[in-house]
Amino acid sequence: MKRGKLITLEGGEGVGKSTNLLFITRWLEQRGVGFVQTREPGGTPLAEQLRELLLSRRKEQVDPTAELLMVFAARAQHLAEVIQPALTRGEWVICDRFTDATYAYQGGGRGLDGVLIGQLEQMVQGELRPDKVLLLDLDPQVGLKRAAGTGAADRFESEQIAFFERVRAAYRARAAAAPERYTIIDASASLESIQHQLQCELERLLLEA
Amino acid sequence: MKRGKLITLEGGEGVGKSTNLLFITRWLEQRGVGFVQTREPGGTPLAEQLRELLLSRRKEQVDPTAELLMVFAARAQHLAEVIQPALTRGEWVICDRFTDATYAYQGGGRGLDGVLIGQLEQMVQGELRPDKVLLLDLDPQVGLKRAAGTGAADRFESEQIAFFERVRAAYRARAAAAPERYTIIDASASLESIQHQLQCELERLLLEA
Repeated sequence: MKRGKLITLEGGEGVGKSTNLLFITRWLEQRGVGFVQTREPGGTPLAEQLRELLLSRRKEQVDPTAELLMVFAARAQHLAEVIQPALTRGEWVICDRFTDATYAYQGGGRGLDGVLIGQLEQMVQGELRPDKVLLLDLDPQVGLKRAAGTGAADRFESEQIAFFERVRAAYRARAAAAPERYTIIDASASLESIQHQLQCELERLLLEA
Repeated sequence: MKRGKLITLEGGEGVGKSTNLLFITRWLEQRGVGFVQTREPGGTPLAEQLRELLLSRRKEQVDPTAELLMVFAARAQHLAEVIQPALTRGEWVICDRFTDATYAYQGGGRGLDGVLIGQLEQMVQGELRPDKVLLLDLDPQVGLKRAAGTGAADRFESEQIAFFERVRAAYRARAAAAPERYTIIDASASLESIQHQLQCELERLLLEA
């Protein structure tokens, strides 16, 4: 049985991940590709409880290292229970955010050292990295306006614009450092153009599989 | 202002930590030593929520690495919010379990690599180590009998006896490797004899302070 592919969708607030995830999963269904759709932080009961703790607004100032360790705790559980078994069964895994988000939010946003994040990545993932990262890139000013009105802001969404500028810069730097593994998609383009690009990437991945 | 001392009380189930913690804190009050009493995992609202997730029994099999990262996430929060500020203010910190419990339960009990635990310890604590670890040592067969009937067993308490034998062995190995920092107290002795030993240790620590 050939190992499945791990495809992650990344990007800041309001870049259109939900809409495009739906497009991706419909496309995979049409092509008869077996897949699991999941998200981070979350994807298992325990990991979703950790997500709750991470996102909930609180009076307590959350220590950045504590936040980072909670993210990786959720990831370890998600990998053991969902992602690794699916890949082993030969299914694809389509994940709404993964470790690039940790480099972007906890690294870029919170200013934690990338070396520290890399140590935890190695500890939790071993050699596993996404086969393809689809990065929806957008000016945070535009993204936050789009995201406004989709419910009360969580602990991350209530950050200042400078935080989201750093998140975007960190995402772009990751993509620039390993262009073969990342596809940057201009999320300010028309939905038609975005989904045409997504389709091209999926076709390519399916040919490789 | 002189830095306070970090004193941790360690041991398996039913070794008498609560009774002896009360003895320690009363003794410190009588001597006029400013202190904070706290516990792990826990000690802050977020860390107590992580404790809940760690202890609650669940259908989901918890990944040992996820468990380990949750323990250190709670510890990072506890250190930043409670322990480090108290030590800086010159107060003593009396903590019901700390990183030795991680070596004992996640290392000994779950079989995780001590090197991995050491990496996380360094990441979260830097150079901070307890000034004194008071280890209440007891045959787990005896301890579990004592602990029975003090409420429903949590996710750790519901482990098999072999787990607790490994926990005890790991605790003793830690103490044997750094005898100057550990005091092993025979928890099968009379309460009078245990508290006499505790008092001697506290006197010594106060003289050093």
